[in-house]
Amino acid sequence: MIRTREEYLKALKAMKPNIYKNGEQITDVTTHSATRRTVESHARAFDAAHDEKYKDMFTTISSFTGKPILRFNSMMKTLDDIMKNALLKREMYRFSGTCAGGTCVGWNAQNVMWAVTHDIDKEFGTEYQKRLEKWILSAEERGILCSGALTDAKGNRSLKPHQQADLDVNLRIVERRADGIVVRGAKLMICAVAASEEIFVLPGGAYKDTDADFAVAFAVPRDVDGLTIVEARRPSDGREYENGWDIPETGITQSYLLFQDVFIPNERVFMAGEFKYSGKVIEYFTANYRACIGACVAGQGDVMIGASVLMARANGLSHKKFDDKLTTMAANNETTYGLGIGAMALGGAHPSGVWVSDSKIAHLNKIYVATLPYETKRLCQEIGGGIVETGCTPSYADFQDPKYGELLKKYVKAGDCSAESRVRAARLSEWLTIGAGVPGCMHGGGSPDGAKMVVKAFTPFDKFAEMAKMVAGITEDIKEPEMPKKP
Amino acid sequence: MIRTREEYLKALKAMKPNIYKNGEQITDVTTHSATRRTVESHARAFDAAHDEKYKDMFTTISSFTGKPILRFNSMMKTLDDIMKNALLKREMYRFSGTCAGGTCVGWNAQNVMWAVTHDIDKEFGTEYQKRLEKWILSAEERGILCSGALTDAKGNRSLKPHQQADLDVNLRIVERRADGIVVRGAKLMICAVAASEEIFVLPGGAYKDTDADFAVAFAVPRDVDGLTIVEARRPSDGREYENGWDIPETGITQSYLLFQDVFIPNERVFMAGEFKYSGKVIEYFTANYRACIGACVAGQGDVMIGASVLMARANGLSHKKFDDKLTTMAANNETTYGLGIGAMALGGAHPSGVWVSDSKIAHLNKIYVATLPYETKRLCQEIGGGIVETGCTPSYADFQDPKYGELLKKYVKAGDCSAESRVRAARLSEWLTIGAGVPGCMHGGGSPDGAKMVVKAFTPFDKFAEMAKMVAGITEDIKEPEMPKKP
Amino acid sequence: MIRTREEYLKALKAMKPNIYKNGEQITDVTTHSATRRTVESHARAFDAAHDEKYKDMFTTISSFTGKPILRFNSMMKTLDDIMKNALLKREMYRFSGTCAGGTCVGWNAQNVMWAVTHDIDKEFGTEYQKRLEKWILSAEERGILCSGALTDAKGNRSLKPHQQADLDVNLRIVERRADGIVVRGAKLMICAVAASEEIFVLPGGAYKDTDADFAVAFAVPRDVDGLTIVEARRPSDGREYENGWDIPETGITQSYLLFQDVFIPNERVFMAGEFKYSGKVIEYFTANYRACIGACVAGQGDVMIGASVLMARANGLSHKKFDDKLTTMAANNETTYGLGIGAMALGGAHPSGVWVSDSKIAHLNKIYVATLPYETKRLCQEIGGGIVETGCTPSYADFQDPKYGELLKKYVKAGDCSAESRVRAARLSEWLTIGAGVPGCMHGGGSPDGAKMVVKAFTPFDKFAEMAKMVAGITEDIKEPEMPKKP
Amino acid sequence: MIRTREEYLKALKAMKPNIYKNGEQITDVTTHSATRRTVESHARAFDAAHDEKYKDMFTTISSFTGKPILRFNSMMKTLDDIMKNALLKREMYRFSGTCAGGTCVGWNAQNVMWAVTHDIDKEFGTEYQKRLEKWILSAEERGILCSGALTDAKGNRSLKPHQQADLDVNLRIVERRADGIVVRGAKLMICAVAASEEIFVLPGGAYKDTDADFAVAFAVPRDVDGLTIVEARRPSDGREYENGWDIPETGITQSYLLFQDVFIPNERVFMAGEFKYSGKVIEYFTANYRACIGACVAGQGDVMIGASVLMARANGLSHKKFDDKLTTMAANNETTYGLGIGAMALGGAHPSGVWVSDSKIAHLNKIYVATLPYETKRLCQEIGGGIVETGCTPSYADFQDPKYGELLKKYVKAGDCSAESRVRAARLSEWLTIGAGVPGCMHGGGSPDGAKMVVKAFTPFDKFAEMAKMVAGITEDIKEPEMPKKP
Repeated sequence: MIRTREEYLKALKAMKPNIYKNGEQITDVTTHSATRRTVESHARAFDAAHDEKYKDMFTTISSFTGKPILRFNSMMKTLDDIMKNALLKREMYRFSGTCAGGTCVGWNAQNVMWAVTHDIDKEFGTEYQKRLEKWILSAEERGILCSGALTDAKGNRSLKPHQQADLDVNLRIVERRADGIVVRGAKLMICAVAASEEIFVLPGGAYKDTDADFAVAFAVPRDVDGLTIVEARRPSDGREYENGWDIPETGITQSYLLFQDVFIPNERVFMAGEFKYSGKVIEYFTANYRACIGACVAGQGDVMIGASVLMARANGLSHKKFDDKLTTMAANNETTYGLGIGAMALGGAHPSGVWVSDSKIAHLNKIYVATLPYETKRLCQEIGGGIVETGCTPSYADFQDPKYGELLKKYVKAGDCSAESRVRAARLSEWLTIGAGVPGCMHGGGSPDGAKMVVKAFTPFDKFAEMAKMVAGITEDIKEPEMPKKP
Repeated sequence: MIRTREEYLKALKAMKPNIYKNGEQITDVTTHSATRRTVESHARAFDAAHDEKYKDMFTTISSFTGKPILRFNSMMKTLDDIMKNALLKREMYRFSGTCAGGTCVGWNAQNVMWAVTHDIDKEFGTEYQKRLEKWILSAEERGILCSGALTDAKGNRSLKPHQQADLDVNLRIVERRADGIVVRGAKLMICAVAASEEIFVLPGGAYKDTDADFAVAFAVPRDVDGLTIVEARRPSDGREYENGWDIPETGITQSYLLFQDVFIPNERVFMAGEFKYSGKVIEYFTANYRACIGACVAGQGDVMIGASVLMARANGLSHKKFDDKLTTMAANNETTYGLGIGAMALGGAHPSGVWVSDSKIAHLNKIYVATLPYETKRLCQEIGGGIVETGCTPSYADFQDPKYGELLKKYVKAGDCSAESRVRAARLSEWLTIGAGVPGCMHGGGSPDGAKMVVKAFTPFDKFAEMAKMVAGITEDIKEPEMPKKP
Repeated sequence: MIRTREEYLKALKAMKPNIYKNGEQITDVTTHSATRRTVESHARAFDAAHDEKYKDMFTTISSFTGKPILRFNSMMKTLDDIMKNALLKREMYRFSGTCAGGTCVGWNAQNVMWAVTHDIDKEFGTEYQKRLEKWILSAEERGILCSGALTDAKGNRSLKPHQQADLDVNLRIVERRADGIVVRGAKLMICAVAASEEIFVLPGGAYKDTDADFAVAFAVPRDVDGLTIVEARRPSDGREYENGWDIPETGITQSYLLFQDVFIPNERVFMAGEFKYSGKVIEYFTANYRACIGACVAGQGDVMIGASVLMARANGLSHKKFDDKLTTMAANNETTYGLGIGAMALGGAHPSGVWVSDSKIAHLNKIYVATLPYETKRLCQEIGGGIVETGCTPSYADFQDPKYGELLKKYVKAGDCSAESRVRAARLSEWLTIGAGVPGCMHGGGSPDGAKMVVKAFTPFDKFAEMAKMVAGITEDIKEPEMPKKP
Repeated sequence: MIRTREEYLKALKAMKPNIYKNGEQITDVTTHSATRRTVESHARAFDAAHDEKYKDMFTTISSFTGKPILRFNSMMKTLDDIMKNALLKREMYRFSGTCAGGTCVGWNAQNVMWAVTHDIDKEFGTEYQKRLEKWILSAEERGILCSGALTDAKGNRSLKPHQQADLDVNLRIVERRADGIVVRGAKLMICAVAASEEIFVLPGGAYKDTDADFAVAFAVPRDVDGLTIVEARRPSDGREYENGWDIPETGITQSYLLFQDVFIPNERVFMAGEFKYSGKVIEYFTANYRACIGACVAGQGDVMIGASVLMARANGLSHKKFDDKLTTMAANNETTYGLGIGAMALGGAHPSGVWVSDSKIAHLNKIYVATLPYETKRLCQEIGGGIVETGCTPSYADFQDPKYGELLKKYVKAGDCSAESRVRAARLSEWLTIGAGVPGCMHGGGSPDGAKMVVKAFTPFDKFAEMAKMVAGITEDIKEPEMPKKP
């Protein structure tokens, strides 16, 4: 089903209030200052699904039913399918200027679990994939937005889950019942939960047998009993409570999900202790996620280019004066986008039918995602000038002040456009580069150091040494030396 | 005179209220949420001046009177004098984590104008330097904090001051009287005005004869009649109005100074129309300022290293795990610091006795100041993890919430220290890298593109071509070709 | 036909001697010191074509005849076809350590001209494609190596071809005859000509009507009458004339092709004056070439990794000590490789059936090809130490000297392997990074500045400005200002 | 004494022939193809000492005798003295395009040993400094060129000197006699030995008591009995044996010094077993050397800028077209130069009176010396085009060939200047970036990894953590965690 914006908003309004921010309960996510912006961001996806121009990108045909569905409810089975994922995410960033995570992690999670349940069922004779199929069919049918959650609280970073003083710091099964499981723990920094109707939960790491209780995957309604959601604050999010022009009308949220003994019925459980496959979840998930995330930061970079062009003009200058910087920004955007596509093209279909991107290139892309956008932001600030760099301009309230408001406008006006438009462009640039619009792509989906280790693991150093020997005409064996003990 | 913190605060309290933020008048800068943090930052300089450990750095002997004075009231006549300027600024950043501009621009301005008034007086037989000497003696005697202001509103960036639709967009002399001048216009994005007692105003550019009225320099009390000050807002400055731990107790302000026909008596005017020397002001000012600013970002980088070490430990990890990143951060800090010192050492004494740093190296340093700190911030976020990257953690209020506050603490605790300490360290890192603590050093004191042009201007391309010819054994003249006209 | 190494060498021996170096004619390219190494590099492709392990990579099925052929004689019609191009080129670099251009430009040229002749024929009713098909069938049948040539002498870089003082500085048609054309001019810096049997010549630029005579494409036997070939020298190529271990047994050549009124019969002419399509040649050629060249530098980078591992061990150290550097090298390699694959995947089939990669990403890749390998080389030198950095070790002759040869071996030995192996590994690293093995990928196939302009041209700045306006809530039109005239 | 070029050359001619290259003995270094270029490079220093324009830079007044001496024989006691060292080295690179090591390491070694002998004498009551003073006075009086040697053969990099299978791989005292010591071993990759009259030898590392025999410093005539010198080969050094224009008339040599039981009389021995102070030698030497080496690469970079300007013009283009690249090259040059000056200014006088630069900044500079020049070279190749990148142009012999020489000239000519001048400019650029002119500054004087460790060692991580705690308002102690044992 492809709902309209109105149907989507109505569904959100109908949910139980379990979200909090600044010590306050949010009763209606579609209107509350803290959440309405991320809801708006996602609502634009529903608009697009009904817009001739974007229809092909935002909808597709169900591989199960042959019916038209939202693309982010679909299975990704071909290179084209997954390239469309990247395309859609880039477009969502262009629509909203920031992360619309509700069209991302849950979608990826459902696909990855299709592959993993296939593998688990094959080894253990379980029927996880059937359960998942039923859930996907329902999701397609309802046309829901489903966010996804991996990152556990983790506790002490130098200890394994079962070694932690408080076992709950990684989400775990605390009870196994005939009709389902009970879970406790927290998933932190989860995007777009406030705009979502369900949450797809995956294990946060590759576990050994000692940590079997942490190998758990399931899907829950966002307002399930026992789940408390607290929104994190971000740099300039206080402005979301104001009127005026100091912050855009779109936005992002990042939540702390507190699971206090939440019961998950069997039909929604897709892994429950099969630790051996938790590593597969991580492997497939990160391969696809890190291939696609290059499109996200590219999309935000596109908006930064646009904002920089606006600022140049609002300052009275042609954007051509900044050709070199703007082209570098574009190059950065296309690098993470194009390299992600490369990872997809070098991937292949899992036996279950799901497309899995190439791990080495996907993880390499994460390294760039953790660096290039910082240069793009820096250039956006450099082109925009001082009022962009730290958002150094008085507040909307000041511009309205009867005493000195007009004076401010007089002095802030620079090019042909109004002071208001110049400030709006500056505020957008600030928000994108040093404000509440920064999406957290460096650590989202795992750290760049982890990515670097994957690149290393996939590099055949000894094979390359052999090729070098051949070219150099070395016939002798050159062994890896045993390192002498320190005396 | 070397006042105590208490004396300094008392003096600030006694000033007339002409500062506004968010449409609200600030009656006492020492207690108001919007300004008390920058006051606290500067108050630490007064503490240091009385602290045996820092006394040598923060005080010196007046070259006029031989009496002990605050160092930031002093003349900088030797390489050692100006190196101490860099040292002091680095230390101020370490004390406050951010910019304490009241110990910076005014000090530099007074020294630069000592040289420029010397030159003007020599050509025109004026007596500006005597006026300046009198002002400096008074400043030394009172031991005041004086901020400095250069950046005009500027208007259309592609037009000269006299070409602007509204002439006021660059501060200008609107009336010359027997006893002084009247100025109108605005100086924007001026640091630390709220913590200062006077403001030293310099021309914002190098002007030609058509723009003589804009070539004006003077010093005024911060609360002079006709001056309205509006504070700019910055990313997370809304938190300055809250209690809790989400923002440090130190801070920065950036003001818009609105001069509405302010009268400046002659004894406070140090340039009034001598357009020919406005370029010298810019040249000397930027040479010293850009040599020193490397110390500022180094000092903030030092705190970022410290914050990163805290975050690693708070996450349960040794900071040694991040040795390479931390060393890169240190290398970045020392680069801008050391290159600035190089610019100073390659400088020399102006005939007036004031030390002027080497322009080429100083401006080169500005290029690094506009790039390296971005990498340092990125690394601070990379080491700190997701809760640092976007400050992704619930608010202080949430942690105190009776319903879920304890749960949040349970899940946020990671290493041996308390959840509070971990959040404080994360909030510090956020504030330093993507919050209200980011000082705006890229455009402060001029843009990096302008700096690049200075480096180019000082590079003798033809001389180098001649040396290359000699080494290559080329005897023929190789001329710069005339470019053919486009057909 | 898939010839053996022996058949290939025999064919080369049978050719007429028209190649010179250092003022000396080369009578047999397979044995002469100046050319035998590049012949050896290419001979390994014929070995591979008969090697079970590499067969699939080096051979394929003709889309014309269904018969097995050498892959570098084939048409590239699918994404898989062109991805195999990249794979093959990377492997060739691993085999030889340097450029085997005979398996590259001619292959690409034949495919690009398939598309372009399709377009020309459609507009002008010519029958170029039929001629080309005949030539391709013959090339497939004979299983030849065909190099490719684009770069003209160019003359004054600020003038168009018809504006040059000497019209010959761009290859041109000087006579049109009933049975063919006569061409004069030079193609410079052409790789692997000495190892090739034919040369596929393309126009060097996108021309207008004034330059129609320069819009010419054809294929000629390497030893065609009127063609004189002079080999360029490179940094350490003098060692190719010595015995010993100071240079590998593989190699590269770069030729100056001097066409002195060479007659090209009609059946070998594929473009002769259709200037309008010369731009298409450049567009399609660079799109595919720059997508693939990332694989070349990746392959050479693989050998640099191998050489670095060898050097570490030969110095007595585990290569793990250099993990971070080696992983950065691998990351660089995979970046140009993966981004090239991304360009391919974002491309599509030309109406003629030939696959054309995405221009924007392909050109972006060229920017990386012109930068990342320099870092990879630097790291190779850094790991290898001083004897790698500048090849700072005595010659083979010195190591054999009866007086001090043994002393040198005594002092050069470091790890477990022999002095000879350590020197060979060092010489390989030197050759790869600062010697005759450096392939010239920065300017080969066009300069990175040109690539940057393509990236700029494909970036929709105005569209991005519109998206930024939407997100910022700006309703006013913000126009590109007209720049005021300098007064 | 300040000799003329002629006197210098005469002195070199009079020396005993103990230098070899390619298995051949060099009887006269001033005329032999392998060495005459480095001699020419150094001879220009003697010209400069008599040139009014350079006199102040190349000569000074002896602090011992008050007589005029060559600057590179002088003591460096003030900041100005050592800044002149940097200035002189930069100028030498501009004169020769490459390293003139005879004006560098020996000079530094004599100064460093002045400090170290002061320390040793103070502890042990020895009289090393008196010996050194006598030697310096003689060197000043004779006005000699003295190269310097630190780098041992080293053998297995994971073993200490006394652990090596062959103890000789580090230079050592094999006999102590009443009248002197006997040393055996090798110093490798030593610059400019062929142009020098003496060699100042320092220990290659900081040793413990087990390695006391390796802690040895002395000065010897270059042609001392028992010393055999073998020159290393470099990328394009074969051209030094040719006539023509393919290589400049200046140059560099890097030697392997083989000490076969060389007797050093007591008056020339300045350290003989005082292992405790070998670390001080390294510390002082690297501090000054790495502060100054930034000037070397800056000087070579200046010539690269010049060569790039020539290439642009020879191609028919204004160098302004490459403004941004040329300015980046200049910025790189000034960075290593200016940061080195910063290290000097932050240094201070050793109790012995010798100036010692700041270690942290000096070592930081080494990191840049090992990276920035690579970018400068890359840009030089990028501006120059394909014939620069790999020196891709036929040999001088080809250009003289009666058959096709004129054709080559016709096609190589581009701008207004002759083909010869264009090729000379290209060959210069090749030689500077990928040929025999590359000086080996990355590993010369120690590796950048070692430098990074020094930067780390001088960074007070715990102090910075304390400052961060203060700013963050953290009162709790946050301890460095003990890492748990792997289970």
